[in-house]
Amino acid sequence: MALAAAKPWGGRFSEQTAASVEKFTESVSYDQRLYAHDIAGSKAHATMLAAQGIVSEAEREAIIGGLDAILAEIEAGTFLFRDELEDVHMNIERALTERIGAAGAKLHSGRSRNDQIALDLRLYLREQCDRFDELLAAMGRALVRRARHYLGEIMPGYTHLQRAQPVLLSHHLMAYYEMFLRDRGRLADCRKRLNVSPLGSAAMAGTSLPLDREMVAAALGFAGVTANSMDSCGDRDFAIEFVSACAQIHLHLSRLSEELVLWSSQEFSFVSIADRFCTGSSIMPQKKNPDIPELIRGKTGRVLGGLMALLTLMKGLPLTYNRDLQEDKEQVFDVVDTVSASLAIMAELLENLSFNTETLRAAAERGCLVATDLAEYLVEKGVPFREAHGIVGRVVARCLERGCEPSDLSLAELGGFSTAIGEDVYARLTPTGSVNARLATGCTGLPRVTEAIEKAEQFLGIHP
Amino acid sequence: MALAAAKPWGGRFSEQTAASVEKFTESVSYDQRLYAHDIAGSKAHATMLAAQGIVSEAEREAIIGGLDAILAEIEAGTFLFRDELEDVHMNIERALTERIGAAGAKLHSGRSRNDQIALDLRLYLREQCDRFDELLAAMGRALVRRARHYLGEIMPGYTHLQRAQPVLLSHHLMAYYEMFLRDRGRLADCRKRLNVSPLGSAAMAGTSLPLDREMVAAALGFAGVTANSMDSCGDRDFAIEFVSACAQIHLHLSRLSEELVLWSSQEFSFVSIADRFCTGSSIMPQKKNPDIPELIRGKTGRVLGGLMALLTLMKGLPLTYNRDLQEDKEQVFDVVDTVSASLAIMAELLENLSFNTETLRAAAERGCLVATDLAEYLVEKGVPFREAHGIVGRVVARCLERGCEPSDLSLAELGGFSTAIGEDVYARLTPTGSVNARLATGCTGLPRVTEAIEKAEQFLGIHP
Amino acid sequence: MALAAAKPWGGRFSEQTAASVEKFTESVSYDQRLYAHDIAGSKAHATMLAAQGIVSEAEREAIIGGLDAILAEIEAGTFLFRDELEDVHMNIERALTERIGAAGAKLHSGRSRNDQIALDLRLYLREQCDRFDELLAAMGRALVRRARHYLGEIMPGYTHLQRAQPVLLSHHLMAYYEMFLRDRGRLADCRKRLNVSPLGSAAMAGTSLPLDREMVAAALGFAGVTANSMDSCGDRDFAIEFVSACAQIHLHLSRLSEELVLWSSQEFSFVSIADRFCTGSSIMPQKKNPDIPELIRGKTGRVLGGLMALLTLMKGLPLTYNRDLQEDKEQVFDVVDTVSASLAIMAELLENLSFNTETLRAAAERGCLVATDLAEYLVEKGVPFREAHGIVGRVVARCLERGCEPSDLSLAELGGFSTAIGEDVYARLTPTGSVNARLATGCTGLPRVTEAIEKAEQFLGIHP
Amino acid sequence: MALAAAKPWGGRFSEQTAASVEKFTESVSYDQRLYAHDIAGSKAHATMLAAQGIVSEAEREAIIGGLDAILAEIEAGTFLFRDELEDVHMNIERALTERIGAAGAKLHSGRSRNDQIALDLRLYLREQCDRFDELLAAMGRALVRRARHYLGEIMPGYTHLQRAQPVLLSHHLMAYYEMFLRDRGRLADCRKRLNVSPLGSAAMAGTSLPLDREMVAAALGFAGVTANSMDSCGDRDFAIEFVSACAQIHLHLSRLSEELVLWSSQEFSFVSIADRFCTGSSIMPQKKNPDIPELIRGKTGRVLGGLMALLTLMKGLPLTYNRDLQEDKEQVFDVVDTVSASLAIMAELLENLSFNTETLRAAAERGCLVATDLAEYLVEKGVPFREAHGIVGRVVARCLERGCEPSDLSLAELGGFSTAIGEDVYARLTPTGSVNARLATGCTGLPRVTEAIEKAEQFLGIHP
Repeated sequence: MALAAAKPWGGRFSEQTAASVEKFTESVSYDQRLYAHDIAGSKAHATMLAAQGIVSEAEREAIIGGLDAILAEIEAGTFLFRDELEDVHMNIERALTERIGAAGAKLHSGRSRNDQIALDLRLYLREQCDRFDELLAAMGRALVRRARHYLGEIMPGYTHLQRAQPVLLSHHLMAYYEMFLRDRGRLADCRKRLNVSPLGSAAMAGTSLPLDREMVAAALGFAGVTANSMDSCGDRDFAIEFVSACAQIHLHLSRLSEELVLWSSQEFSFVSIADRFCTGSSIMPQKKNPDIPELIRGKTGRVLGGLMALLTLMKGLPLTYNRDLQEDKEQVFDVVDTVSASLAIMAELLENLSFNTETLRAAAERGCLVATDLAEYLVEKGVPFREAHGIVGRVVARCLERGCEPSDLSLAELGGFSTAIGEDVYARLTPTGSVNARLATGCTGLPRVTEAIEKAEQFLGIHP
Repeated sequence: MALAAAKPWGGRFSEQTAASVEKFTESVSYDQRLYAHDIAGSKAHATMLAAQGIVSEAEREAIIGGLDAILAEIEAGTFLFRDELEDVHMNIERALTERIGAAGAKLHSGRSRNDQIALDLRLYLREQCDRFDELLAAMGRALVRRARHYLGEIMPGYTHLQRAQPVLLSHHLMAYYEMFLRDRGRLADCRKRLNVSPLGSAAMAGTSLPLDREMVAAALGFAGVTANSMDSCGDRDFAIEFVSACAQIHLHLSRLSEELVLWSSQEFSFVSIADRFCTGSSIMPQKKNPDIPELIRGKTGRVLGGLMALLTLMKGLPLTYNRDLQEDKEQVFDVVDTVSASLAIMAELLENLSFNTETLRAAAERGCLVATDLAEYLVEKGVPFREAHGIVGRVVARCLERGCEPSDLSLAELGGFSTAIGEDVYARLTPTGSVNARLATGCTGLPRVTEAIEKAEQFLGIHP
Repeated sequence: MALAAAKPWGGRFSEQTAASVEKFTESVSYDQRLYAHDIAGSKAHATMLAAQGIVSEAEREAIIGGLDAILAEIEAGTFLFRDELEDVHMNIERALTERIGAAGAKLHSGRSRNDQIALDLRLYLREQCDRFDELLAAMGRALVRRARHYLGEIMPGYTHLQRAQPVLLSHHLMAYYEMFLRDRGRLADCRKRLNVSPLGSAAMAGTSLPLDREMVAAALGFAGVTANSMDSCGDRDFAIEFVSACAQIHLHLSRLSEELVLWSSQEFSFVSIADRFCTGSSIMPQKKNPDIPELIRGKTGRVLGGLMALLTLMKGLPLTYNRDLQEDKEQVFDVVDTVSASLAIMAELLENLSFNTETLRAAAERGCLVATDLAEYLVEKGVPFREAHGIVGRVVARCLERGCEPSDLSLAELGGFSTAIGEDVYARLTPTGSVNARLATGCTGLPRVTEAIEKAEQFLGIHP
Repeated sequence: MALAAAKPWGGRFSEQTAASVEKFTESVSYDQRLYAHDIAGSKAHATMLAAQGIVSEAEREAIIGGLDAILAEIEAGTFLFRDELEDVHMNIERALTERIGAAGAKLHSGRSRNDQIALDLRLYLREQCDRFDELLAAMGRALVRRARHYLGEIMPGYTHLQRAQPVLLSHHLMAYYEMFLRDRGRLADCRKRLNVSPLGSAAMAGTSLPLDREMVAAALGFAGVTANSMDSCGDRDFAIEFVSACAQIHLHLSRLSEELVLWSSQEFSFVSIADRFCTGSSIMPQKKNPDIPELIRGKTGRVLGGLMALLTLMKGLPLTYNRDLQEDKEQVFDVVDTVSASLAIMAELLENLSFNTETLRAAAERGCLVATDLAEYLVEKGVPFREAHGIVGRVVARCLERGCEPSDLSLAELGGFSTAIGEDVYARLTPTGSVNARLATGCTGLPRVTEAIEKAEQFLGIHP
């Protein structure tokens, strides 16, 4: 009875909680990560309680002072979190009350852990939105710097992992820039939606105490308050939306990783990853493995799994708060850690990545990659595209037989396929000629790619 | 050879496609759903080709006329889609060429199926964003109408599926209104991001023909064009974002469904679903089952599975287009169909739902649901909240022993728990007193809920 | 250079690993959990190396002694795992070599970390199969004991969460016994399939040293060796199969949890969970929440997420080992911990669960639950079932109007629905009469349920 | 009223089902696929009803005859399935009753759709287990035939997509054989577990009619009957287990597909896929794309999504049958269709696959792939493995500088790295020497691989 009474909710209970239950239900081992957000929320709540006359000014000062001291202890690593107090909220509140007495016992007025954890998690994720935005900007800078560095270099562009057409290496890199830019947009929208304060929803019905929810929200930098207390206490939409955006970030990372793995293979030999970003083999002395991109690719499952966990968690939960929701935090934290670490190390790797530009160019010169250019040349000469496509198909078949490129065929031979072909065709049948001709918005022509880089540099504040 | 040559890409091939391969790779059986978007895209493309001098005005007219005729046939059900032509694009283009000859063969100038399908899917999903917005608005209207209808009725609010505090039924309903409102916001952001035209990206490098991408984009109502042709051809972010938003919608539906199933049980008996929304049993003549919410709840798996399918699909794909992407459409279509049908039938069911208001009120009167009110009463009298919580815990324990409610205890008996309790406490110890006292923004007090309903009615154009 | 050379693979590297890379790639922070399995494998490997003359007997003894000492230190908590040594394997091998010199440096002969981790994980999961089998047996015992304890008590059986027919509570409990019994079967099959030794596969091609793989396998209790070295090094089928089986276990737990949550509600009031298995509310003093089943239900997402992570991880990995595979362990460990803890606490909770048998019986008496019995009575009298179903439907409609049960209708009134109804019908229209009549194998009749309990008791070694 | 009464359960209903509800709830559009299993089950049930005296022998004959006629009509495509009759069961039963009258109305005696659909799905999946076993055997035959055909050919084995060690191409192919063999084992275990009859469980409580469940089970080839009627009606374990096994099959296919895509690239050029298994590009005339493996890889998401859908579906469902379960079938069917089609086309593709053996061998000759051989040579000469690894690391660094292979270094130069190196080392430094030396069980040495092929040929009944 004594111990049960020691719980924040022990009044009506006649047995103490089983040790196995305490262990199974505690969350403080991981939600202590939210200590700073919890304390910030409590300070704003206390200030509002004072403004509304629910605590005195002196009590407010005692609370603020006590919380600041606890914050300092936690950051110094001297605060002892106790499992039997269940979670970060009760650990801090109990410590406060032990220090400042009755004033501490007033802090929870008009508040429940249900709205408190919703607040903490929103504050935490708002911070992560900002942090991720910076990580994505850093990734963007790494990509744009590589794109600037290699501007003009030609490589084969692929579809179906088959060489398709010559492109600028910088154009390829800027494709990833676009992906991560969209990710920033998604996070910004997510931030906008999550930036409302749930505090004051209390257990779920609101409170009969005269709280000023807007005052707390303003103090914590929120754009407003949530509109419905029952919704607020059981809502994890914002966490799911954040994790969904992270899943898309990680998919982009997985694609880039796959390409780095491919490009590092002996067969491609397109890039050299610096030794300090690779590891070797415990048995094969010659090995140098692209571990970083492999691990990032492998972590895709982890991130998708985290998303799936959150989605499944919410399925079919009746209103409002259910204890199931406690399972949200570890998933969110793991996704945050996984995606942010992957972004950071990938940006670092990119900054140190060398492309084997000769190999890239040579690869663009073999395999009839200018076939489409020849077809479009014919279109310009008035041949309907489908007919041009068929003509070029036959030119390519000839090249395959001979093991040569279209530009290796004589004008006479080319003319045998179509009388529309003239001497001027040869200028179009080189990788450079091919790239130079692609000048519509967003295409791989040098002026277009240069503009794209310049626009990105300006946006990112890079002075090349 | 003849047949292989009949493919749009047959020129270099020396064998005809195996029948098993044709069957395995065709997509026309499902992507024909995109016919209208494909034709709209082709018409805009043709008009631009004419403006740029790539086709003549007469050719443009022939193309437009031909496409309109094909559109009419498809809508009349008389157009024959052929598997061996692989997809909707080639079926339409081939039909066009068969009808209008060389002009048709020019339509594919500067275009690839890679950017064409990206265009079609964006047009389709933009349309779905608008359609879903209307479905969500209808759901909102159904909820708000119920909330208006039952305004003032009291029920128990739950946490952990335990009765917690009295709330207004309308407040509970408006919690769902908030969820679906957020869903509309997510879709609006998704729409904004997907509303750019990929056409002109061609296979992935762009084209050497002098296309005017912006003209096509404007004609199709896009806000602009995509910035990088390689990204554009392998990008399915917009589809994933749309399906992610749908997953969140369906989670909201699953929660509402769970509650309807619970409330329909003999134990709760909170609602009566009209006979015409239920089915019976083939063996148990007395059964009336809440099939609609059960099915909707069950479909949650289907929607999450669709999202997981798309996410997994994209994992580790190198740039740019890979045939894997063909697998996107069936998932998108199935999610669209599942979520839209669920939204529509749920709104219809809600419009016809009767609440058993007496049962609801009676349920709110039992189980010490006013315990928090008593604690907050004590706080107002100056008792620190934690102390008040402990006092009320003991009051509740007494009530449990006696099988009574706090309001059943005499003032003398209540005074024995705390001297701060006076005669005025009884006004707080009824469901109505409890609800009436919760007056902060977003709380369950009648003025707050009324305001919320009024705001929603105004937003939705309801004139109650 | 010095540090790079200090890696087990440093020879060819000219830069030391970046600190950020070390942190990103290390696994020792979590794979140290496999220390005992790693050491067991190394001891068996060393003994075989000695038998094959690759190390001397003295070297073997030094290795065994060194490994035992390290094992003791790890278990005493005095062993220092170092991140820069990457994983559990290299931490142990390096420590061994530091202690015993050259003999330690011979241990890795004919072995790679690729086959070593595959071995460790198989040993670990084999052990977990056995542990889970016991956990499931304990769960079975808890269910069977409850079933025995309440044998004879009647409750309503549900379909669609609607009361359907009277059943024995013990029959309901034994349904879960069957589920967990199937889980044991799946794990047994999984164990059978994973119980082969991959050691000797080396990096993936095998080794040119004269290893005796069968000797190692026998020493470690394996039923044999894997058949293909390339498959062995990249295979995680066994982990996926194990986690799939865990997902099914947890789904069963989630269903049981859902029922416990429902049954704990005021509306059902079917069970009382002991106070020591519940927690309260920080704001609502009257609350007693079924946290354990809620948390278990919530953890379903976590387990499904873990499975999804593993499945996604393996998608599209070329042979053989890829670093992506490092991501397998944390998922496996988390699933093992989550499911085993949930099983244990649920069994403990069940052992302490009280059913409110009067409430159960009363619930079975209302709602025309004997309607099917009446229909089957009519079938016995020669009425075709479909016709009987229709007749009873009309009887039920009458009862609904009157708010009564079929047994409340007079024989005259019943006879008005069908002349086949006689006085003997009343014996069938009670919950007990209904249950008693269901006597085919697996049905809810008392003799059948008693037999099922007896069979389970015998299987589980319970002496009631 | 009239129409509601026309439903199999209409008796107590006072409104007809809304058309939108009928459309939303019907399953006959997809569960009609189970017609043969449903009819087989009904025939066995009818025969048992006759044996138990519940229907007469004449009625049994009428039922059997009527069902056979309906079966013939369905197979001839002349049977009209009607949505308003909800599902395959009621469509068939209604048609039967319309033909044979009262006898048909007796068929549903002691049966519910709950146990009927469980029966149908088990029969269907049992059949699929057998079909998949044959598809996997065919895949095995294709792999073994390729392995036999190319026996002796050498290629580089990879870890981390880096060339690691020389292996036999046949060894690589046989790695996949092992994977698909495990898949057969999983399906066999699944089949064993699902092969029990649920019929007689009725709605969930069993029936009061004197059914002989074992007789029906025997007639349908089941090994027994399910043990608990409540479990039986809500159990979908068998479907989840089947789909889990399918997910593992498809992961194996995804890995093989990834390799085929890689090997088809210009960079690898390891294989030539026959023209009839590829398609081309609508814009790039030179393209020949590995569509089949790309699509199979892409379908991985679909299969994992199907699994996730089923798992999520079951989360938190209370006993017994809930309408959510209706959502199981489309997922099961889609997974069956997807995986079986992928297996079939992949086997066909493999049978027609040509390896470029010269390219493979050349690739094995470059990149110091014999480094491990040199290290193991040193171990044989008494150098501790870790020391040998370091020595070879330095040899490799020298080779990288020079752009040569270890075998290009003179004995004098090699001796400079270790005095243990003698003339006999050169025999070990070729791909053939490397492969020949790997002779432990499961390794890549020719005798071992030959044995593996022979064993598989014998198992599969191939006479090479």
